[in-house]
Amino acid sequence: MGIVVQKYGGSSVADANGIKRVAQRIVNTRKAGHDVVVVVSAMGDTTDELRDLAEQVTPLPPPRELDMLLTAGERMSMALVAMAIAQLGHKAQSFTGSQAGVITDSAHGRAKIIDITPGRIEAAIKDGAIAIVAGFQGVSQDTKDVTTLGRGASDTTAVALAAALGADVCEIYSDVDGVFTADPRIVPAARKLDRLSTEEMLEMAASGAKILHLRCVEYARRYNMPVHVRSSFSQKEGTWIIPDAQGAQMEQAIIAGVAHDRSEAKITVVGVPDKVGEAARIFEALATTEANLDMIVQNVSAAATGRTDISFTLPRADGQTAMTALARIQDEVGYEQLLYNDQVGKVSLIGAGMRSHPGITAKFFASLAAAGVNIEMISTSEIRISVIVADAQVDEAVRATHSAFDLDAEEVEAVVYGGTGR
Amino acid sequence: MGIVVQKYGGSSVADANGIKRVAQRIVNTRKAGHDVVVVVSAMGDTTDELRDLAEQVTPLPPPRELDMLLTAGERMSMALVAMAIAQLGHKAQSFTGSQAGVITDSAHGRAKIIDITPGRIEAAIKDGAIAIVAGFQGVSQDTKDVTTLGRGASDTTAVALAAALGADVCEIYSDVDGVFTADPRIVPAARKLDRLSTEEMLEMAASGAKILHLRCVEYARRYNMPVHVRSSFSQKEGTWIIPDAQGAQMEQAIIAGVAHDRSEAKITVVGVPDKVGEAARIFEALATTEANLDMIVQNVSAAATGRTDISFTLPRADGQTAMTALARIQDEVGYEQLLYNDQVGKVSLIGAGMRSHPGITAKFFASLAAAGVNIEMISTSEIRISVIVADAQVDEAVRATHSAFDLDAEEVEAVVYGGTGR
Repeated sequence: MGIVVQKYGGSSVADANGIKRVAQRIVNTRKAGHDVVVVVSAMGDTTDELRDLAEQVTPLPPPRELDMLLTAGERMSMALVAMAIAQLGHKAQSFTGSQAGVITDSAHGRAKIIDITPGRIEAAIKDGAIAIVAGFQGVSQDTKDVTTLGRGASDTTAVALAAALGADVCEIYSDVDGVFTADPRIVPAARKLDRLSTEEMLEMAASGAKILHLRCVEYARRYNMPVHVRSSFSQKEGTWIIPDAQGAQMEQAIIAGVAHDRSEAKITVVGVPDKVGEAARIFEALATTEANLDMIVQNVSAAATGRTDISFTLPRADGQTAMTALARIQDEVGYEQLLYNDQVGKVSLIGAGMRSHPGITAKFFASLAAAGVNIEMISTSEIRISVIVADAQVDEAVRATHSAFDLDAEEVEAVVYGGTGR
Repeated sequence: MGIVVQKYGGSSVADANGIKRVAQRIVNTRKAGHDVVVVVSAMGDTTDELRDLAEQVTPLPPPRELDMLLTAGERMSMALVAMAIAQLGHKAQSFTGSQAGVITDSAHGRAKIIDITPGRIEAAIKDGAIAIVAGFQGVSQDTKDVTTLGRGASDTTAVALAAALGADVCEIYSDVDGVFTADPRIVPAARKLDRLSTEEMLEMAASGAKILHLRCVEYARRYNMPVHVRSSFSQKEGTWIIPDAQGAQMEQAIIAGVAHDRSEAKITVVGVPDKVGEAARIFEALATTEANLDMIVQNVSAAATGRTDISFTLPRADGQTAMTALARIQDEVGYEQLLYNDQVGKVSLIGAGMRSHPGITAKFFASLAAAGVNIEMISTSEIRISVIVADAQVDEAVRATHSAFDLDAEEVEAVVYGGTGR
């Protein structure tokens, strides 16, 4: 049988008992005849604790040194998991990102994987060992320095490694049973999805579903790697994320689920002169801040004034920087006013089936209207409709939409849902 | 000016404040015009905590994985020290043992340094940076696996690196002011020594003085590296350990100090037939246990019985294994009985000057006799006399000897003495 890559999040390896439980699961997979490669996150809150320690020393840690510090987290968990497997009588070897051949660029704290050269992992497998690999980290191609891939990127390590090894499947374990039609904390009747296309998962992740990291899904899509999202606390099947090529053959539900996101703020540039090049100047100014813009909406300009409003959303953390950059070009652009609102949330309806089903948008908006939810911005892709609403109305909007599209389960499952454990 | 290598022990970098204090000291050295390379231990009790964590997972952690786990400790402290230096406006880069070019054999947990190839450190210095290097760790030449050099070996890393870099001096910082004529906890009148020859320090370390690791002194001696042992909590000069070649020119005190050691046990093989090859068989059996034998004494055999007794000391931790190995060969060797005693201690008188001063041994034994201390075993080197006495009489023996050789200070210094901080 082929290679199975399993990724265990921080909540799954939070303490010695968790580590032993995970080791047993790994050994069971091995006994079933698979070659197993395991990617682990740091134990519990270790990464946050290390960040705190850095903050106690300096408010501005040099990124290279912060990466050196943070990578100690996976180093501990991977060695302990390897020990626990040895205790069960199986051969295991742990590998840092660098040893596993995870080659990245030099952007400390948010490095991108350039290549994976898993020679040592393949040798370990060939030698009959289970390979345990540190997630979240790599080594820079140019300077041979230790890098980290950014928060939650252990999922990305797992999928990228699975692709490089030609694995059959990449299993992502956390404390959640799988991907749900909506956040069960908001919609108790949310159902676990048995399968999803990577395209749908991509939209879910981009729309705020925290179960999988966006980059990880992009990797899965690019390399056609099936991903199985499941809980390390139960034996239940989770959610299969099936590559689009394979997904095309399966019968698709119209709507996969409802996602929401409270991490963004909305900025409106009011009264922008409706001239060629004005929008470009605004977004050039924003580009220098490296803020990650999400939805961008420009209304048709009112003929009477010759002016238009441009709105966009971005992570709240980037709000202040963006506002400063825009204020600096007010005279040059000649806009009238800047509005900042971080009391907003995004609600998204996602489903590959909506391509061929007209009327979805109308039904979505009607359900929001019936719930008394006002829509502030709209943006759509082929398989997603997102709206910005008031923060206080997000929960209601998610519930109303979930019901309107018949996603509610008949019986409410008892679900564990407490963060993603990454 | 040349390169100064500074080594800071775990107690010096136990928390954020300690790290900031150490960073200030490093920067001061840099400002004085030196190129600085720093070797750090893990923070406070981190290494022990990691060992505990491993024990919670398995009673028998695979050595390769234990090394992977433990090396996380220096990774944290070195990154934090680098951050703290950056915060003071100076350039700093941290390096793992592997990155620093500390090449070892593959004996996990007690690896020996084979070579040091400090190319990256030299490049960092050339670049104007302060290099921070993880102590205690290296990378194996054959398997490229992460290794550790054994408990307290950060001192060894520092001296070996200082030698490889051609440094002017290796400064070893801990929470102790320097090397004392005896342990101040036992002899309040003990004096800090201003200088010692490496030969004397070697005997002191081998005789239980915990201030410097034996291997580190061996390195210093082999590479003629001056070592300055001092406290990171004060600005006072500490003790200079001067290479023998240079030390030969200096006027030597007859006695450098009195060391003691309570870590050993004594085993006596009673009634060994006095035939050629019997002792060899006994010590071959002991060799297989890898126990580190210290003093070995064989009395002249009593003509009447044709039998002799062989006694030796070894670390208490190795006692059980050695006894088992000896019991196994009783029939083969034909000895009568095995005696085990771990209620013993070793007291050693050390001084390069004793070479040319007869009568030291007599005075030593007389002082012990006057204090009512019974001598169980004796062993000597050119510059050391060691005796095994009852554990309960060690303190009294040290005090009596210290006084007899006029080592007592006229005024008792207020000394900090609480372990070696490694």
